[in-house]
Amino acid sequence: MTDFFKGIAPIKYEGPETTNEFAFRHYDPDEVILGKRMEDHLRFAVAYWHSLAYEGGDPFGGQTFLRPWFGAGMDQAKLKADAAFELFDILGAPFYAFHDLDARPEGATFAESKRNLEEITDYLGNKQASHKTKLLWGTANMFTHRRWMSGAATNPDPEVYAYAAATVKAMLDATHKLGGQNYVLWGGREGYETLLNTDLKAERAHAGRFLQQVVEYAHKIGFKGSILIEPKPQEPSKHQYDYDVATVYSFLKDFGLEKEVKLNIEQGHAILAGHSFEHELALANALGIFGSIDMNRNDYQSGWDTDQFPNNHPEMALAYYEVLRAGGFTTGGTNFDAKLRRQSLDPADLVLSHVGGMDTCARALRAAAYLFEDGPLEAARKARYAGWEREGAKAMLAQPLEAIEKAVLENNINPQPRSGRQERLENLWNHYL
Amino acid sequence: MTDFFKGIAPIKYEGPETTNEFAFRHYDPDEVILGKRMEDHLRFAVAYWHSLAYEGGDPFGGQTFLRPWFGAGMDQAKLKADAAFELFDILGAPFYAFHDLDARPEGATFAESKRNLEEITDYLGNKQASHKTKLLWGTANMFTHRRWMSGAATNPDPEVYAYAAATVKAMLDATHKLGGQNYVLWGGREGYETLLNTDLKAERAHAGRFLQQVVEYAHKIGFKGSILIEPKPQEPSKHQYDYDVATVYSFLKDFGLEKEVKLNIEQGHAILAGHSFEHELALANALGIFGSIDMNRNDYQSGWDTDQFPNNHPEMALAYYEVLRAGGFTTGGTNFDAKLRRQSLDPADLVLSHVGGMDTCARALRAAAYLFEDGPLEAARKARYAGWEREGAKAMLAQPLEAIEKAVLENNINPQPRSGRQERLENLWNHYL
Amino acid sequence: MTDFFKGIAPIKYEGPETTNEFAFRHYDPDEVILGKRMEDHLRFAVAYWHSLAYEGGDPFGGQTFLRPWFGAGMDQAKLKADAAFELFDILGAPFYAFHDLDARPEGATFAESKRNLEEITDYLGNKQASHKTKLLWGTANMFTHRRWMSGAATNPDPEVYAYAAATVKAMLDATHKLGGQNYVLWGGREGYETLLNTDLKAERAHAGRFLQQVVEYAHKIGFKGSILIEPKPQEPSKHQYDYDVATVYSFLKDFGLEKEVKLNIEQGHAILAGHSFEHELALANALGIFGSIDMNRNDYQSGWDTDQFPNNHPEMALAYYEVLRAGGFTTGGTNFDAKLRRQSLDPADLVLSHVGGMDTCARALRAAAYLFEDGPLEAARKARYAGWEREGAKAMLAQPLEAIEKAVLENNINPQPRSGRQERLENLWNHYL
Amino acid sequence: MTDFFKGIAPIKYEGPETTNEFAFRHYDPDEVILGKRMEDHLRFAVAYWHSLAYEGGDPFGGQTFLRPWFGAGMDQAKLKADAAFELFDILGAPFYAFHDLDARPEGATFAESKRNLEEITDYLGNKQASHKTKLLWGTANMFTHRRWMSGAATNPDPEVYAYAAATVKAMLDATHKLGGQNYVLWGGREGYETLLNTDLKAERAHAGRFLQQVVEYAHKIGFKGSILIEPKPQEPSKHQYDYDVATVYSFLKDFGLEKEVKLNIEQGHAILAGHSFEHELALANALGIFGSIDMNRNDYQSGWDTDQFPNNHPEMALAYYEVLRAGGFTTGGTNFDAKLRRQSLDPADLVLSHVGGMDTCARALRAAAYLFEDGPLEAARKARYAGWEREGAKAMLAQPLEAIEKAVLENNINPQPRSGRQERLENLWNHYL
Repeated sequence: MTDFFKGIAPIKYEGPETTNEFAFRHYDPDEVILGKRMEDHLRFAVAYWHSLAYEGGDPFGGQTFLRPWFGAGMDQAKLKADAAFELFDILGAPFYAFHDLDARPEGATFAESKRNLEEITDYLGNKQASHKTKLLWGTANMFTHRRWMSGAATNPDPEVYAYAAATVKAMLDATHKLGGQNYVLWGGREGYETLLNTDLKAERAHAGRFLQQVVEYAHKIGFKGSILIEPKPQEPSKHQYDYDVATVYSFLKDFGLEKEVKLNIEQGHAILAGHSFEHELALANALGIFGSIDMNRNDYQSGWDTDQFPNNHPEMALAYYEVLRAGGFTTGGTNFDAKLRRQSLDPADLVLSHVGGMDTCARALRAAAYLFEDGPLEAARKARYAGWEREGAKAMLAQPLEAIEKAVLENNINPQPRSGRQERLENLWNHYL
Repeated sequence: MTDFFKGIAPIKYEGPETTNEFAFRHYDPDEVILGKRMEDHLRFAVAYWHSLAYEGGDPFGGQTFLRPWFGAGMDQAKLKADAAFELFDILGAPFYAFHDLDARPEGATFAESKRNLEEITDYLGNKQASHKTKLLWGTANMFTHRRWMSGAATNPDPEVYAYAAATVKAMLDATHKLGGQNYVLWGGREGYETLLNTDLKAERAHAGRFLQQVVEYAHKIGFKGSILIEPKPQEPSKHQYDYDVATVYSFLKDFGLEKEVKLNIEQGHAILAGHSFEHELALANALGIFGSIDMNRNDYQSGWDTDQFPNNHPEMALAYYEVLRAGGFTTGGTNFDAKLRRQSLDPADLVLSHVGGMDTCARALRAAAYLFEDGPLEAARKARYAGWEREGAKAMLAQPLEAIEKAVLENNINPQPRSGRQERLENLWNHYL
Repeated sequence: MTDFFKGIAPIKYEGPETTNEFAFRHYDPDEVILGKRMEDHLRFAVAYWHSLAYEGGDPFGGQTFLRPWFGAGMDQAKLKADAAFELFDILGAPFYAFHDLDARPEGATFAESKRNLEEITDYLGNKQASHKTKLLWGTANMFTHRRWMSGAATNPDPEVYAYAAATVKAMLDATHKLGGQNYVLWGGREGYETLLNTDLKAERAHAGRFLQQVVEYAHKIGFKGSILIEPKPQEPSKHQYDYDVATVYSFLKDFGLEKEVKLNIEQGHAILAGHSFEHELALANALGIFGSIDMNRNDYQSGWDTDQFPNNHPEMALAYYEVLRAGGFTTGGTNFDAKLRRQSLDPADLVLSHVGGMDTCARALRAAAYLFEDGPLEAARKARYAGWEREGAKAMLAQPLEAIEKAVLENNINPQPRSGRQERLENLWNHYL
Repeated sequence: MTDFFKGIAPIKYEGPETTNEFAFRHYDPDEVILGKRMEDHLRFAVAYWHSLAYEGGDPFGGQTFLRPWFGAGMDQAKLKADAAFELFDILGAPFYAFHDLDARPEGATFAESKRNLEEITDYLGNKQASHKTKLLWGTANMFTHRRWMSGAATNPDPEVYAYAAATVKAMLDATHKLGGQNYVLWGGREGYETLLNTDLKAERAHAGRFLQQVVEYAHKIGFKGSILIEPKPQEPSKHQYDYDVATVYSFLKDFGLEKEVKLNIEQGHAILAGHSFEHELALANALGIFGSIDMNRNDYQSGWDTDQFPNNHPEMALAYYEVLRAGGFTTGGTNFDAKLRRQSLDPADLVLSHVGGMDTCARALRAAAYLFEDGPLEAARKARYAGWEREGAKAMLAQPLEAIEKAVLENNINPQPRSGRQERLENLWNHYL
C-alpha cells in the first residue's frame, strides 16, 4: 500500500444535492437506465498514462507533479501499479487502459523491454485478480522514443517496421494475457512532418499491411477483443494518416479490414479535425465501425490537444445519444483520455477530476437515455424523411436519370421547402438536460 | 460586341522585366516545358460564376459591381455570354467553366429552366465555334435556390431528389453538347446544419445512388469526359459529406465508383479542411483519383472560403509539383475558382486579376517542372526509403508478427534514426523558385 | 394587426417540467434573484435585423423566408413594425434593438433616407407607447450599401466620412427620440481587405475623431444612454479595427474616451477573436468598460459568424457570472443577436428560437446567481491570492528591483507551487448547474 | 574548440545560381541596399535556446538530438558556449540572443543560479571579445521551472513575484554587462489556465507594476538598450495577457510605458493571434512601438507554435516592407526564433536551416527595398487618400455632427465608390519578387 491517497475514502453516490466534494452527484453505478446498470452503460476506464505516468510537462515547462513512483526502475513501476489500483478502488472504476511504456521500464534492448513488460503485466494481472478493475484496452507507445521519430509502421527504415511489429506483438500478447477487451492503435507518428521527404503511397501501403498482420496475429492467438484504430488529424505530426473517422474508413476499405477493425473516437481529436464529437460517433455508427470512446474535452480556443476532463454535460449528452443509437458499448467503454492541468498538484485533484468527469458523463447519459427512450427526437427525424416511404420514392433510386426527368416534366414537380425546425429540436434537447 | 472591356487589348507575354501591367510576365503559352507547351500544361479556365455572374455581395453587404449584363432575362444572359468571350479572348484562355444558373435565366418551372438552358448553350456553342476557348467543365447549381436549402440528392424530400436528378441530367446533356471535357459535382448543400434532424446513413445512401445514376447516364450518352467530385468540408453547410479527398474516396469505394469518378481539388477547400493544397493533391494521386484543380487562395486568417486569386508562387509550385508527379492533367485543368474582391470595381481589375493569377501559376509550374526534371528531390525521397529495397525488407511484409519478433530478438535490432533533412529540402526548393 | 403569428398566444412561464413547447421552462420574469426580478437582470432585447429583416440568405444561397412585409416601400416597413411588436408581445420582451436600415426604406438621397427614418421612428414610437417593449439600443447600418464598401469613418473618401457622420447623427437623434438606452457602433467595414492599399494610421485617426464627434453630439442633445462599441475581429473585413475588448480599450485610451464609451460584447465575436465569451466580459469589467451583451452562439467548427441562438446553459452561466461580478446591467441588456437557421421557415420557429434562447439565459443566470450569492468561488479566488494581503507583499511593489533581489538572497526565497485546483472549481460550477 | 561542426567551413555568398548547398544564394552582407549594408539592415541573431539548448522533444516524444554539450554542469555550459560561437562564426551572424536558463546551469538556490549566470556570462563576454558576434538581446526564462507554473509577475504567490524580480534584475545586469542592445520580456505564464481561479484585475496590476520596476532599474544602471515585450496570445497558457500588439499597447498606455517599452514581434505569434505578421508590424509602427522581430514561420494548418525557419520569401517581403516603412531597425534585429524539426539530427541541418532562413530574409528584404525605393505602392496608397488633402476634408474633422449633416443635405452628397485595386497591387508586388 502506498499512502499517496491517504485520507481519501472510496467515492460513493450521494445524489445531486450533496455538498460533499468527495461524492458522486450523478454517477450511481447501480441505477438502471434503459434496462442496464449505469456502470454497464458507461464502462469507465482510467488512463494509466495521464493519471499515473504524466509528470506535468508541457512544451514550455517541465515536471510539476511529484509522485513517489516516478523513476526508471522496476520498483517504481510496481509502486505505480499499486497507486493505480488504489486510485481505481477509490473511484470504483470498472476498467483501466495503458500503453506498454506507461507501465514498464524501457529496456536497453527489445528483449529487455519485453521481459520488463512481462514482469509488470504479471504484477498487474495479480492486482486485477484481487480488485474489481479490469483491462479495457492495451496499446503500444510507438511515439515517445526517438526511434519512432519518423514513424513506426510507416518509417522509411524497415528495421523500425520490424521493431514496431515486435512491439505490437508483445503488447497484444500482454493485453490478451490480462483479459483486455480491446487493443488500440494510435498512430501519432504515422504521418509526416513534410511531404517533401515522404512517399505517401508507400507509407500508406505499409500501414495497411501492418494492420493486416496485427489482425491476423490477434486471430491466431484467439484474442476475442476488438482491434481499434484511434483517429487524430495531427499533433505530434503535421499530418496523420488516421485523420478522422471517414479517412480511417477509406483505409480499412482499401485493406479489406472494415469488418475486422473498429474505431476508438476521442472528443479532442474530433475537434482538432474540424468535427463535433457527435458527428464522428454518428458517422462511425453509420459506417458500422463504432467501437469505443476516449472521453475528454478540448479547449475550443486552443489549437492543440488539451485532453481536459469533460465538464459540459449538454455536449456530452449529444455524444452518448449517438452511443445509444449505435446500440451502446459492447467491448468498448468510456476511457478518460484526460489529464490533470499541470497546476493541479494534489492527490485530491487526481481523484476529483475523475469524479467530476464521471458525474458529467453520468448526467449526460441519463439525459440522452430518457430522450432516446421517450422517442420524440427519433420521431421527428423519421417524420422529416417520411416522403421516402411513399410509393415511388424508393423506386426512383432504381431509375435512370432520363426517367426521373420525364416524371419531373410530366408532373411539373416543384418542391416546396419545409422547415428544418432546428431550434425547436434544440429546445427539445434542453428539456431533457 | 459589348464595350465593357473597351481599350483593353489581348494580353501578350512580354517577360518578367516588363513594366506593362497589361502583359504576362511569366505565362508564355508557347514555351515548352518538359516537352509540352505551357498552355497545355496549365489548361487555364475562367469561371463564369465569379467573373461574370458575381455581383460583389458578401454576408454583410450587397451588390457593388455594376455590369450591363446583370438582370433576369435572356437578353442579359446573351450579353453576359458576349462579355464572357471578350474576356476569354483578352486573356487567351483555352477554357471556361460554368453552372447552369450562371448562364441561363431561372425559369418558373423546370421545363422553362431547361428550355432557357438549351437556348443559352446553343448561343455559347456558337461562341465556342468562333473562338479559341472551349468548355473545361459544366456543373449544376443546386445550392442557391431555396428549393435546395436542405440538400439536393440528400434532401429529406424525394421530390427534391427528383428535381436534382433532372437538373443534373439537363446540365450533363448541355456539357456534352458543348464538348465539355469534365462534369463536376459540388455538394454545398449535401450535408447538414444539425445532426438533430439528419438521417446521416440514409442521406449518404441517397448521395451514393445519385452518383451512380449520374455515371450510368454519362456512359449512356457517350460522355467521354471525367465525372469529378469537388470536396469541401463546410460552408454553406455546417458539415458537408464531401469533406476532403480521403472522405470522398471512402464514399467512392462504398459505392463502387473509385474507377469512375475523380476529384476536382480546390486550394481554399483544402485549407478549410485543415490540409495543405499539396497534401490533397498528393493523396488524390496516391489513391488514383486525381482529376482537376480549382485554383485560388484562401486567406489564412479567415475561416471561410475567400476564393482569392493566387499570388504566392512558392506555394503554388508545391501544388504543381504534385500535378506533375501525377502525370499532369488529362481532361482536367486549372480553373480559377477565384473572385475579385468586392471593392475591385473596374473592368481592368477583372482582367488583371486573371493576368496575375495566370502569371503566378506559370511561374510556379516552371519552377516545379525544372525541379522535377532535374530530379534531386525525387532522388532524395528514393534514398530515404532505400532500406525497403534491401533483401528481406519486403519479405517481412508477408511474415506473421511472431516471425518478425523472432528476427528482432535474434538480431538484437535496434534502429538508429537518420536525419529527415527537412530544412535542406526546403532550401533545395527555394533554389528552384 | 398582421396575422403572421396567428394562433400563437403570449408565452407564459410554466416551469421546467412542462411539455408545452410554447411555454417558458426557466424564464420567469417575476422571479426574484439576488434581490432583482429576473426580467430586470436579463433585460432581453429582440434584434430587428435578424428576426424581422433577415431573408434567409447565406453566401451560397438566397432568400428562403417568405414574410408578407418583405419589400422596399414604407407600407412594408410599417407592416414589419406591426409584426415586430406582435413578436415582442408574444415573447414579453422588454426591449428591442434596430439599425436604421432594418426599419426604414433606403432613400435615393440622404435627405429621403432621413425622412423615411423619421416617419418610421414616429411609427415605432407610437407602438412603444402602447406596448411594454422599449428600445434597448439603436445603431446605423454602415456596411450593407455599396457606398460603405471601403469603410465609413475610415473610408479613403472624405465624402463617405461626411455621409457616415450625417447617418449616425440621424440615427442617434432617432434613438434619443425613442428613448433608447444605448447607442451602438459596430464597424464591420472599419478595417481593411488588404494592407497594400491601406493607411492604417490615418484610418485609425479618423475613426478616433469620429467617435469623439459622436460622443460630443450625444452630450449636446442630452442623450443619457451609453455609447457602446461592439468589437469584432473580422468578417466582413479581413481585419477590423475593433478587434476585441483589449484592442478597443487601447483605442479609447488613445482618444481619451475610456470614460465615455463602453462595450457591447458578443459571444460569437469573442470566439472569432480567439477568446471565450467570459474572458471578454471579465476583461471589460476589469478595465471598467463593460456595457451590454449581444447574446448568441458561434458554432465552434465554423470560422464565420454563425449567430445562432444560445442553447448551452453551462457556457452561458460563465458569462452571466461575469455580468454579475460587474454589478449587472445598468443601461445594457441581453440582446439576441441571433438568427434563425435559414431552413427554419415557420412563424413558430421565430417564436420558439427566442423562447429557447431566453430559457437558456434564464437557467444560466439562475445558476450563476446562486453560486455568486453563496460565494464559494469568490472565496476560493480570494484564498488563492491571500499571500498578497500579507505584510510586505504589497510593499514590495513599491521597491526597486535591487531591494527585492536582496530580500530573495537574504531569505533564500524558494517559492513552492500550490495546486490551482482547476478541476475542483469546475466541479463546483457543475454543482450549481 | 569542439569538433561538432567539423568539416563545415564558414558560409560565403556565392549568388543565386550556385549549387553549393553550403553557400548563401541571396544574403550578401556587404551588398548596399537603400544606402545601408544588408547585414546592417537585417541584423540577424541566432537563438541560443533553439539552436543550442533544444533537445528535440515535443509533447509526444522526448530527446532526439545528441549533442556533446547536453547536461547539467558548468563544463557542459561552457562547451555549449564554444559550440555556439562556432556556429555564429560559420554563419557570420552579427548577433545572438539567449535566456539565462539556456546558458547557465540551474542552481539549487537563487544565489547559486545567479553565480552560475555570472560565470557563464563572463565566459560569453570573453567569447564576444574575440568574435564578431554580439548580443542582440537577453531575456529571463520564467516559464520552464515548476515555480513559474502559475505565472511569474502575475503569480498568486508574492514570493514568486519576488523571485521573478530578482531573476529579471540578474539577467538585465548580465545583458547590460554583455552590451546587449535590447532586453526582452515574454510572458508565457503571465496569463491563466482558467478564469475560475484568476483575479484578472490584480494580475494585470502586478504585471504593470513589474514592468515599471524593470524600466526604472534599466534607467538606474544606465542600460541604453530597448526594453521589449513579445506578444503571444496563448500557449503554454490558455490566455496570455500580452495577446497581440494592440493588447500590449493598451497595457503600456495604462501603466504610462508607451514611450519606454517597444515590441518584439514574432511571425508565429501573430498567426496564432489571428493576424498576419505584416499587420502586427504595421500596427506597431502606427502606434510608435515597433522594436524588433522574432523571425520564424508557423505552419498554417497547426494550431500551436511551430517555430519553423522561414522559407517563403514573398510573405517575408511583406514583413520587411513594413520594417522599412518603420524606418528599419535601430536596436532591434531579425532574431531566428526558429528551431530545427526534431528529425533534423545532423550538424549540417543546424547550419543549413539558418542559411536557408537568412537567404529567405535577404531575398525578401531586397524585393521590399526595391519596391520601397521605386515608390509605386506608396504612390498608390497616397492617391487613394488624396481626397483628404482637399480643402474642407480635414476641416470636417473639427466640425460638430450637425454641421456635417447640414453639408451633406445642402450639397446632396452621394459618394461614389472607387476601385480598391487590390489585385493590381498584388500584381505589382509580384513584379518585385
